[in-house]
Amino acid sequence: MSREYFIGVDLGGTKILAGVFDGNLKCLITDKNKTKAALGYSGVKGRIIETIRGALHLAGIDISRVKGVGIGAPGTISKDGERVLFAPNLDWREVPLKTDIEAELGCPVWLGNDCSLATLGIHKCELDSKPNNMVCIFLGTGIGAGIIANGVILEGETQAAGEVGHMVLDTEGPVCGCGVRGCYEALASRTAIYNKIKNAVENGKQTVLAEDDGKTLTKIRSGKLRRAVEAGDKLAIRVLDETCFYTGVAIANLCNLLNPEVIVIGGGMVDQMGETMLPKIKDAAFNRIMLGAREVRIIVSKLGDDAGITGAAVLAYDNA
Amino acid sequence: MSREYFIGVDLGGTKILAGVFDGNLKCLITDKNKTKAALGYSGVKGRIIETIRGALHLAGIDISRVKGVGIGAPGTISKDGERVLFAPNLDWREVPLKTDIEAELGCPVWLGNDCSLATLGIHKCELDSKPNNMVCIFLGTGIGAGIIANGVILEGETQAAGEVGHMVLDTEGPVCGCGVRGCYEALASRTAIYNKIKNAVENGKQTVLAEDDGKTLTKIRSGKLRRAVEAGDKLAIRVLDETCFYTGVAIANLCNLLNPEVIVIGGGMVDQMGETMLPKIKDAAFNRIMLGAREVRIIVSKLGDDAGITGAAVLAYDNA
Repeated sequence: MSREYFIGVDLGGTKILAGVFDGNLKCLITDKNKTKAALGYSGVKGRIIETIRGALHLAGIDISRVKGVGIGAPGTISKDGERVLFAPNLDWREVPLKTDIEAELGCPVWLGNDCSLATLGIHKCELDSKPNNMVCIFLGTGIGAGIIANGVILEGETQAAGEVGHMVLDTEGPVCGCGVRGCYEALASRTAIYNKIKNAVENGKQTVLAEDDGKTLTKIRSGKLRRAVEAGDKLAIRVLDETCFYTGVAIANLCNLLNPEVIVIGGGMVDQMGETMLPKIKDAAFNRIMLGAREVRIIVSKLGDDAGITGAAVLAYDNA
Repeated sequence: MSREYFIGVDLGGTKILAGVFDGNLKCLITDKNKTKAALGYSGVKGRIIETIRGALHLAGIDISRVKGVGIGAPGTISKDGERVLFAPNLDWREVPLKTDIEAELGCPVWLGNDCSLATLGIHKCELDSKPNNMVCIFLGTGIGAGIIANGVILEGETQAAGEVGHMVLDTEGPVCGCGVRGCYEALASRTAIYNKIKNAVENGKQTVLAEDDGKTLTKIRSGKLRRAVEAGDKLAIRVLDETCFYTGVAIANLCNLLNPEVIVIGGGMVDQMGETMLPKIKDAAFNRIMLGAREVRIIVSKLGDDAGITGAAVLAYDNA
């Protein structure tokens, strides 16, 4: 039988998602595993293989019918596309992921940056207008972005473009994980939200997000935050409003700089609360976008969590 | 005799500069006139012609030997390159500048945005590395920029890209001319400097920049500011330091987003004080640029005030 399927892998710091795609880039089935980054490169590499084999098994498709595998990694990729140069969340430096996975699977593999690939997936499989200029912003624990400029993914001189989370929006703002004051990520990510709620709880504020009679705070996932907002929790609503405000400011900055046709927002928080967030984001953005750039559309990605695997499959599809 | 010369025109809100360039894009001579924007489109059009004819006269070259004219205008240009769609400083909307100047001169004319053309001029005539990704920032009364992404000038969907002056750097900052709080231009332009000094003088601060025993403040040109800084004027030094700080923050944002090879700074203030400003700008920038993007070079344009006419001549050269 001919090789007609593609695999897209989204390798994250906490989970690995793999999807089997047909020749029309339709996703047939996905499988998921924890990354267990602490296992190191060789352990995580094994878990990538396991997740790919799991998805193929669920789809009832043999690896011999796969034309190519795309993998989106949370870091910078070497210019030759062979190595992950630096992936802080995985603690990887200079690992030959492409050749290693190819050797295991006996099938061609291509690597890309996770945010760039998710942007490619949204461009190819979600947006009919195929914009020449667009930005996708992914809101989660951190904040990343992919930029398409003059019709091509913008990788920059050293494959480091798209770090929208480290755009300073408030020089007097809170200190970011990167050490700089007032980065967008320090003002609006899920990590920023957690820090704000933790501070408020320590200062005696009431919220359904806290346990033990409102004294302690465990991890805040996006679903938990959504339920608190829906329950009318004032603190949850306030911090989500702040995330929408700074997201709107960040989008306005991007529009004034790059004058894109579309801005797409995605990621964990947007998957859970995109429709609640969108009007507030648009309000903050359109109050700041210059006249000449105001035709921009600001939308929520419908691909959600599948944007990454879709883009990875597109990478394989375009190259195989 | 053959047509072998090019004309570059930099049309600004206050002055018109025209240069005659030979076939190697070497500037032979320039001429300059006040714009007198109050004369309206037809009056200013006449002054453009006059400035071009003045430069040709000084060079001793007849218009019949000019292969093409490039004009950089302070606004957005229509996609077909025929009209200036909107130039706020000239109060122009939808004016057919290309065909009108062609009719007067009997020679082909091309239009471009002033900041984009200055960037093109710096790219073609000043930077040997011909970077695929670069940003030029022009600091003057306002702040503008030109972006080269993936090897091409980034114009955006509606020719409105590059408005770096309206990137918000401090959501709680002073209100910009555009109405938004904390734009880079409201924090760091010569207009911002004037407002800060005016405020300080009204509050009794001493400065050599004020007249009438320190009570009144007239226009502050870049040369006057430089002399005050050189004389050790504390207020002048402080406001210039702030401009350098915010310029560094703006540059860091651009580097984290676009990961360029080079950032070039130019414009009136930089022509006067570039070497004083550069170490302070670099300090603020490199404290905020992410690891992966730190190979960027930050430099002062040597073309200075001639960047605009050079880029306009390049536009004619590339198209004629």
